[in-house]
Amino acid sequence: MEELKQRILQDGEVLDGDILKVNSFLNHQIDPQLMQRIGQQFKHLFDDQPVTKILTIEASGIAPALMTGLAFNVPVVFARKSKSAIQNDNSYHADVFSYTKKVTNHILVDRKFINPTDHVLIIDDFLANGEAVNGLIQVCNQAECTLTGIGIVIEKAFQKGGQQLRNSGYRLESLVRIKSLADQHVTFMED
Amino acid sequence: MEELKQRILQDGEVLDGDILKVNSFLNHQIDPQLMQRIGQQFKHLFDDQPVTKILTIEASGIAPALMTGLAFNVPVVFARKSKSAIQNDNSYHADVFSYTKKVTNHILVDRKFINPTDHVLIIDDFLANGEAVNGLIQVCNQAECTLTGIGIVIEKAFQKGGQQLRNSGYRLESLVRIKSLADQHVTFMED
Repeated sequence: MEELKQRILQDGEVLDGDILKVNSFLNHQIDPQLMQRIGQQFKHLFDDQPVTKILTIEASGIAPALMTGLAFNVPVVFARKSKSAIQNDNSYHADVFSYTKKVTNHILVDRKFINPTDHVLIIDDFLANGEAVNGLIQVCNQAECTLTGIGIVIEKAFQKGGQQLRNSGYRLESLVRIKSLADQHVTFMED
Repeated sequence: MEELKQRILQDGEVLDGDILKVNSFLNHQIDPQLMQRIGQQFKHLFDDQPVTKILTIEASGIAPALMTGLAFNVPVVFARKSKSAIQNDNSYHADVFSYTKKVTNHILVDRKFINPTDHVLIIDDFLANGEAVNGLIQVCNQAECTLTGIGIVIEKAFQKGGQQLRNSGYRLESLVRIKSLADQHVTFMED
């Protein structure tokens, strides 16, 4: 998605430790028009699939997921994070380790919002090691729904998450794939 | 907003302790089409104001705020919650006590996203005692921006937040105002 590449080059900040900060349009301040075009692009990419529900994780996943749900005209479910590991029978749950924050979040989704007849599209803002997406896949497995695919706004293709998901046979579509953040410089994968 | 009242009557759950759970379309599962109409309604209500930025708080405020930003064609900033009180000179900050969760969250907004020339519209999903909105007002005061108004999806009018804000002279528009949740029954204020 060319517009997104240009926006990353223009407004993204590369920090030490291979961190790309896109706080000005995705993670803290959000550009709603760009988000709408991102949602429409995911609709375009997964238009051959009978999607009934969008699944994401709070908080930064909500904006792209909501706009994807708007484009598909289906509900959006966001997994809630909890510091405590308290489980209850009414929820699907998984543990998600954050490499950025060095903390394990327990994520919860109320059982009533995903059921075996659902065709779920997972949407998230970033894919690096794949921890968050793998947590959402566990939720889908517990729900015994059909996992239609995974849509990612920004994939750090030099980390292992994307390759592992593709090797496992999941349909993964990333709007931009970053090859390297070395020397404070963003290099994209060739299309 | 009649559609929202009907949706609350149809899908809302009233729990002990005057809690209204609207997990099925606002707080956990989101109805994107309803959110878009909510955003358009806030645009209609504040259309006489020169809004340059929408301000909300993660996570449940993001969906209505994003759709309001889409309607106004302005950026949306969401305050981030942090358990730690670590402050830095790059952020506006406030303490927000949650009566529901019995915990104080420290909220942070990067200084670069709100400045004195901004006309800010605060949007949030719920207003009860007004803790979250008052935290966002503190952020606006620190930024020395113009606070255009406050838009709330669901106001619990039997709690003190709304009256206090109106008494203080803030322009507050709530899409629905709940008079009572007694006996597991939702009663709305008369329009």
